Amino acid sequence: MCEAAAYILKPDGQEELFLSEVDVIEPDGDHLRLVSIFGEQKTIKASIHSLNLINHKVLLVEKTP
Amino acid sequence: MCEAAAYILKPDGQEELFLSEVDVIEPDGDHLRLVSIFGEQKTIKASIHSLNLINHKVLLVEKTP
Repeated sequence: MCEAAAYILKPDGQEELFLSEVDVIEPDGDHLRLVSIFGEQKTIKASIHSLNLINHKVLLVEKTP
Repeated sequence: MCEAAAYILKPDGQEELFLSEVDVIEPDGDHLRLVSIFGEQKTIKASIHSLNLINHKVLLVEKTP
């Protein structure tokens, strides 16, 4: 399988797991909707910072209000 | 392998292949740097629009100047 884990990249450089086994990430207004391979959905006011697909990792950065 | 193809999502909805077999996408100033599993690198003034990892697809949108 080719899913990835999505982490929130915090301003201090820490990475906080937001959703694992992610298949789809798509815009939903000014939010992102993430959908896991199990159909779990989460939204977050963030943008996609970077990807490392071989390491199955997606980094998100939260948008400031 | 878990790489994906990166396409530019055009304003008319068309998708134009930018780089295939992408491993890493990371910010480089106001550009993105894409690195393929073969080490090929390309940069583009764009942001990451959406992902569909099971379909091995990343969509980018170009930033207007």
